[in-house]
Amino acid sequence: MRNPESIDLAITDVVALTHTADGTIEFLDGATILVADGRIVSVSTEPYSDPAARVIDGRGQVAMPGLINCHAHSPMVMFRGAAEDVSTSDWFNKKIWPMEVNLTESDVTLAMRLACAEMIASGTTTFADHYFMMDRIADVVDETGMRANLGWTFFSSEGHAGFDRGLGFALDRNGSADGRITTSLAPHAEYTVNDDDLRRTAAAGRDHDLLVHIHAAESRIQTRQSRAERGLSPIQVLSSTGILDGRTLIAHGKGIVPEDLPLLAAARGRVGVGSAPKGYMKVGEETTPIRALLSAGVAVGLATDGAASNNTLDVWESMLMTSLMQKYVEQDELWMSARQVLGIATLGSAAAVGLGGVAGSLAPGHVADVILVDLSGPHTQPVHDLASTLVFSARSADISTTIVAGQVLMADRRLLTVDVPAVVEALRPRLAELTDTSHGKSIQDYGF
Amino acid sequence: MRNPESIDLAITDVVALTHTADGTIEFLDGATILVADGRIVSVSTEPYSDPAARVIDGRGQVAMPGLINCHAHSPMVMFRGAAEDVSTSDWFNKKIWPMEVNLTESDVTLAMRLACAEMIASGTTTFADHYFMMDRIADVVDETGMRANLGWTFFSSEGHAGFDRGLGFALDRNGSADGRITTSLAPHAEYTVNDDDLRRTAAAGRDHDLLVHIHAAESRIQTRQSRAERGLSPIQVLSSTGILDGRTLIAHGKGIVPEDLPLLAAARGRVGVGSAPKGYMKVGEETTPIRALLSAGVAVGLATDGAASNNTLDVWESMLMTSLMQKYVEQDELWMSARQVLGIATLGSAAAVGLGGVAGSLAPGHVADVILVDLSGPHTQPVHDLASTLVFSARSADISTTIVAGQVLMADRRLLTVDVPAVVEALRPRLAELTDTSHGKSIQDYGF
Repeated sequence: MRNPESIDLAITDVVALTHTADGTIEFLDGATILVADGRIVSVSTEPYSDPAARVIDGRGQVAMPGLINCHAHSPMVMFRGAAEDVSTSDWFNKKIWPMEVNLTESDVTLAMRLACAEMIASGTTTFADHYFMMDRIADVVDETGMRANLGWTFFSSEGHAGFDRGLGFALDRNGSADGRITTSLAPHAEYTVNDDDLRRTAAAGRDHDLLVHIHAAESRIQTRQSRAERGLSPIQVLSSTGILDGRTLIAHGKGIVPEDLPLLAAARGRVGVGSAPKGYMKVGEETTPIRALLSAGVAVGLATDGAASNNTLDVWESMLMTSLMQKYVEQDELWMSARQVLGIATLGSAAAVGLGGVAGSLAPGHVADVILVDLSGPHTQPVHDLASTLVFSARSADISTTIVAGQVLMADRRLLTVDVPAVVEALRPRLAELTDTSHGKSIQDYGF
Repeated sequence: MRNPESIDLAITDVVALTHTADGTIEFLDGATILVADGRIVSVSTEPYSDPAARVIDGRGQVAMPGLINCHAHSPMVMFRGAAEDVSTSDWFNKKIWPMEVNLTESDVTLAMRLACAEMIASGTTTFADHYFMMDRIADVVDETGMRANLGWTFFSSEGHAGFDRGLGFALDRNGSADGRITTSLAPHAEYTVNDDDLRRTAAAGRDHDLLVHIHAAESRIQTRQSRAERGLSPIQVLSSTGILDGRTLIAHGKGIVPEDLPLLAAARGRVGVGSAPKGYMKVGEETTPIRALLSAGVAVGLATDGAASNNTLDVWESMLMTSLMQKYVEQDELWMSARQVLGIATLGSAAAVGLGGVAGSLAPGHVADVILVDLSGPHTQPVHDLASTLVFSARSADISTTIVAGQVLMADRRLLTVDVPAVVEALRPRLAELTDTSHGKSIQDYGF
């Protein structure tokens, strides 16, 4: 397997977070990670000394699989803090959907650069995005070196145009950026996309082996309303329209109820749920029933949603919030331990976005998406239990290095593929117009 | 008021977080903050150009009052991550209290240096500590330049020795370190200190105008047990023993029940509650009923507890957790907004530790405890609402500068009064012995 002449990158003398065959987290001291052609060649304690390769000294640092954001609307960083202290309904109808009328392609490009900078700086190497003008987003993914699964949001209110545009994008860009971009079909939600369009989506997903990324069962209120109006829960709608017969990424799933679990369990291995607990707390709502989902064998991954609700695109923060909220809602201090949530952040999130066996683990043959976490800060010393240090003491600002497909995107906290001050300067003159709602228009009406 | 010749420090061209007379948070753009003799002289938009003073360029940064940690056991950073995945009862009886048998004065000194480094780096300028070997802790506060209120923990199981030692320390060190150290009497809790000792504490507090810092109503379970055993809630015990007649800082207060509120309301202006929500979530327990306390006029402040349960001493993190958890438990997205929690972090916390009118606000005459927050990172851009940016997007790692009593303790994230690598090296050989519980001894037995 190992051929020193082809090694592009060696990370030496690091503590490597690895997984056993059953998914248990282990830490390998004094490890060397070798990378060739964008993939991990080996993780071992064998020293490496070939002077030809780029070498990163990992002393005092932990190497982990890059974080995976399972549900984001990344360009919404442009609206960070622009829709505060409002109900979910007002957030959509009075703030976000009217503001999104103002978007230009240039805005999306600039905002996407800022979002990629934030994600790279906080250790995210892959994200699943659900938004508009997705071709511009794909361009920025290509330019910044990130990995992403991209789906162009559509509503049935657009007629067939939305579905067609989304499918066209998915077929056009799948596998682009040297394979760093994969694509999905992205119906907005089971209440904004009708059953015909959901069936059409399911069929296209099957025909082209595309992930379907959809908001569903976003809250208990939605589930209650769906039952009242249709006699079906949102997950039952996904089942009855064939969505659950293919590969599916469900955003939020907070309103998943016991009757949904057998349907999801039957789709296990193909279906995942992305959970973004910070934003749920912020609007005073319930969280994703992760314990029930994991018991049903459903993959659960970490997410941030957009920064207009979550205020950050920081998956490390989602990891902490997920552990704390799960312990709180289950009233169980032994549940969702540091090791369990590290499992969700790595294998779980990779499985949820359809990248199981490809990303999410420092294992030979996996993509070389690696982050290094510096534990020399006073808040992470001393280390008695490395998993606890990572989850409960470290924060994303401790990530020194972010690598995607073997390419270093951040070194010693310097971002190498985005010029943040330039992006901030370029976005500044647009802020007033972007947040203007005086035109009285909206991209959509939110029923809940 | 202003006399340029005596100005020791000027912070120029900064956005200053100030308070109106009714406590509302305001942001003053282009502000200059002048400091003399460790106190704030003025906060204004008048430019300052005297070359004799030390000048800090505040462009692109927000100046805030330094954070106040209303309840900590700071040296417990030595046990960070050493007591994970256990119930509260086992955390005490099987882990912490047996481990604390191993403590030496040298351990406390080293751990305290590490704790001060963590607090300074995360923007805390004042902390209220409740621990053992408090004279060593006071030495390190003096050495590192921090401000603190210190109380030497005692139990009635020690006989009179504990009370006497605590009172002796309080009288000896009050006002030391150029006034940066104030002291308190620190009975451990109303269930580990008997009524006679609580009465003695109340009388001594009154006689010497000392704060009484005590764990009380730490959980609903404690309240239930106290009612069952004594027919009184923990707060009723504090009332009946005279503790609430003086200045009192209650740690946690999670088990405060409606019958307690009139007693606390009657003590308003003298009584405060420190809340540390991260650790509560981590053990799957309820949080402090902050809404009820504020309605009763009781001061509420932010806290971290010790790092053996909270895993950090990061008050900025407590600020975020407090807002999110309050929104969640009250199911109210409008409650505990960014501005409200900034009020708790500043005026509320100062009042809770008995420093109202002295610390917690950038106002003339207040101590010059100031932090600068750098908002140039991609995760804090753009800024649509500065309060939201601070609470929901920024993190403690964005604090560039920490100033206590006009002395710069951290500049550009460099710690100036603690050598962290040296402390970590010195503590390392002690870790195995510190966490050894094979001796079978314990400093105390925990009843809950």
